[in-house]
Amino acid sequence: MHDDSTQIIFLGDGMGGRPVPSLDGQTCIEAQETPAMDEVARGGECGYMDPIRPGVAVGSDTGHMVILGYDPFQYYTGRGPFEAKGVGIDVQPGDLAFRCNFATVEENLIADRRAGRITERTDELSAAINHAFSNGIDGVEVIFKESVAHRAALVLRGDDLDPRVTDVDPHEVGVAVPLCRPLPETADDAPAQRTAKLVNEFVQRVHELLEDHEVNRQRRADGLPPANIVLPRGVGTAPDLKPFSEQYGLNGAMIVEVDLVRGLGMYLGMSVIKVPGATGGPDTDELAIAQAVVNAAAEHDFILCNIKCPDVGGHDGDAEQKMAAIAKVDRAVGYLLDNLNWDSTVLMLSADHCTPVTIQDHSGDAIPLAFYGRGVRPDDVRSYGERACAGGSVHRIRGLDVMNIMGNYAGTLPKFGA
Amino acid sequence: MHDDSTQIIFLGDGMGGRPVPSLDGQTCIEAQETPAMDEVARGGECGYMDPIRPGVAVGSDTGHMVILGYDPFQYYTGRGPFEAKGVGIDVQPGDLAFRCNFATVEENLIADRRAGRITERTDELSAAINHAFSNGIDGVEVIFKESVAHRAALVLRGDDLDPRVTDVDPHEVGVAVPLCRPLPETADDAPAQRTAKLVNEFVQRVHELLEDHEVNRQRRADGLPPANIVLPRGVGTAPDLKPFSEQYGLNGAMIVEVDLVRGLGMYLGMSVIKVPGATGGPDTDELAIAQAVVNAAAEHDFILCNIKCPDVGGHDGDAEQKMAAIAKVDRAVGYLLDNLNWDSTVLMLSADHCTPVTIQDHSGDAIPLAFYGRGVRPDDVRSYGERACAGGSVHRIRGLDVMNIMGNYAGTLPKFGA
Repeated sequence: MHDDSTQIIFLGDGMGGRPVPSLDGQTCIEAQETPAMDEVARGGECGYMDPIRPGVAVGSDTGHMVILGYDPFQYYTGRGPFEAKGVGIDVQPGDLAFRCNFATVEENLIADRRAGRITERTDELSAAINHAFSNGIDGVEVIFKESVAHRAALVLRGDDLDPRVTDVDPHEVGVAVPLCRPLPETADDAPAQRTAKLVNEFVQRVHELLEDHEVNRQRRADGLPPANIVLPRGVGTAPDLKPFSEQYGLNGAMIVEVDLVRGLGMYLGMSVIKVPGATGGPDTDELAIAQAVVNAAAEHDFILCNIKCPDVGGHDGDAEQKMAAIAKVDRAVGYLLDNLNWDSTVLMLSADHCTPVTIQDHSGDAIPLAFYGRGVRPDDVRSYGERACAGGSVHRIRGLDVMNIMGNYAGTLPKFGA
Repeated sequence: MHDDSTQIIFLGDGMGGRPVPSLDGQTCIEAQETPAMDEVARGGECGYMDPIRPGVAVGSDTGHMVILGYDPFQYYTGRGPFEAKGVGIDVQPGDLAFRCNFATVEENLIADRRAGRITERTDELSAAINHAFSNGIDGVEVIFKESVAHRAALVLRGDDLDPRVTDVDPHEVGVAVPLCRPLPETADDAPAQRTAKLVNEFVQRVHELLEDHEVNRQRRADGLPPANIVLPRGVGTAPDLKPFSEQYGLNGAMIVEVDLVRGLGMYLGMSVIKVPGATGGPDTDELAIAQAVVNAAAEHDFILCNIKCPDVGGHDGDAEQKMAAIAKVDRAVGYLLDNLNWDSTVLMLSADHCTPVTIQDHSGDAIPLAFYGRGVRPDDVRSYGERACAGGSVHRIRGLDVMNIMGNYAGTLPKFGA
């Protein structure tokens, strides 16, 4: 179907931004020297992307879904299924899946939503939980698994479950653990009532189980907050997404640092490649990531890569940190420029969303992008950045356009019509 | 949900246009000095808006609906419900509502569609009409109310009514008053047959009632055309629109000069603020309007303001008049620039549609716009106008994008995803 072309979507997570007063009104990308990304812009076609539609901020899950061509309005049910898949649970259609935090409760109030950002022995806590629920609850199978740090996922598998229930994680401390409740529109529905009851029983029994678990006795002895409760949130039913290879006829890989996005890749049946040294933080090894992309390009038609650290700087409101992270993305891009065959490779350089340091959260601002490599028609844009890319020949596209444009340049998208 | 941001959509009605030969091919905006609007463009993000889709001209009702985020394709049934709400009738779901003109019939032909643009004592005519129909027609309640000048609204409330009937107003003079007829597809439907019959009985009895009414005897004596008939048109069933506050979680106000748009605001439950001196004509007090916006900003999260006079100049085909009206809009914008806190305020400056003097009607041309204030990324556009804004970083958006973009800058739009 195609002559050995390779498609690479390369994202600096949350890399786009807004003018920063301390940078004389430049954005972090504009203020940071980015010779490699500028070369991509000079040799490529630039523009803006709205992942979903102008103004609408996306999450990591919905942002990557839509760029991969899966419409979140049609398919997104919540983060839970991707979280659960990402930690290694074999999520099946019909399952209810939740993202969970290990947290600390003291005197019936939430003292720490992340149990002191616990990093060790959560596997032992998970084992205890799965053992305690080995017979399920009321005929419903319970599957729990820890992820990195305080993160975990929960899957409920059985009949008569309903995702329309509230989060148990209140996203604040100093309050009692909320009960899971049916959403208003399902208040009288038996499955929603039952689901809420199951979740509440799970949370209560886990709390009783973990309160005096040996791991937590040790944490208390070390002056650390115990991981004595689990707070489920972000429930979703497993969506019926067509595997990436069936959707596009491409052998796709994903090289990303966020479990939630990895979970999406696994859900889509892509090769999810973990890179030693890819920490997801400001200390990540960007050249190891770039090298992994180059290696993967030898064996895959398509690669999505995301370097997380610019988003971290954005959330922290730290312009210097974000600029340093953008410099890391730039070095990775430089490695790709030096080590790939650009006669056969198409690159999209962009971000999944903007995370301006001025608002410390994802925004719905348009995201700068550049298409580079095989087949593109270079425009007059001379550097990669918010305002520079706005003048490019791509104008303003949607996330759902990306896979078609990539497939067009790569020669893998069939003609529509005769 | 947001930190005291204010969102202002500021529209010069019909302000956009086309090249005018007498202005050396400039548009009226381009030919008129507009220092304040140029400052908004310089400090803001510019682009084009198509209210519905490229090329499609909108009315005042559909244009404002779509900019407020209510899709006319989904919700618009006709102007009648907004006209009726705007003149103060308590329109209820299921009502049939019509826009009406007081008009003049002589020797069974329409002599003047606006009864000499009557400006006085229409309240007495309305009272006579409502008195005559105090028992309704055939079990259907009849509610009639005058608006400014020759304008009025009619509501029919009862069972088995159908909006699929023709206008009685033929939009020309020298012809007989047309009968209201069922539309072809409903010719055999009893409710449409019945509705047409009710409308015809209303029109006939109103004509008999007003022909010798004292107001009209006086008008004849004064050499003025009598308001001796009422011509209903623009029928629609009351649409089920979610109130603005529920849709957006914003406390919204509307400061406009057109009853039809006021009616939309009232229909949406917004605060509809009338400004003394806001006439809707070329003599309007634009600084009083701007001051009302500044005052309203102290108590509302969101304000939509429309200054009508540029549209009047466009309809009149009078470039000088339209330019003077645009200068008024510019002075109002200058007042906003001087009197609002732009760290917390987001402004969209635009129009609901173009009304080129060369065609004297609404056109489907793209409308220049600028977003200004909190959160925006200024682009390179140096002045506000059709061709200048076309080069801006917003590129080309739809009316339905506006509320999302405003909410993004203001920080009031929730993220979609995790």
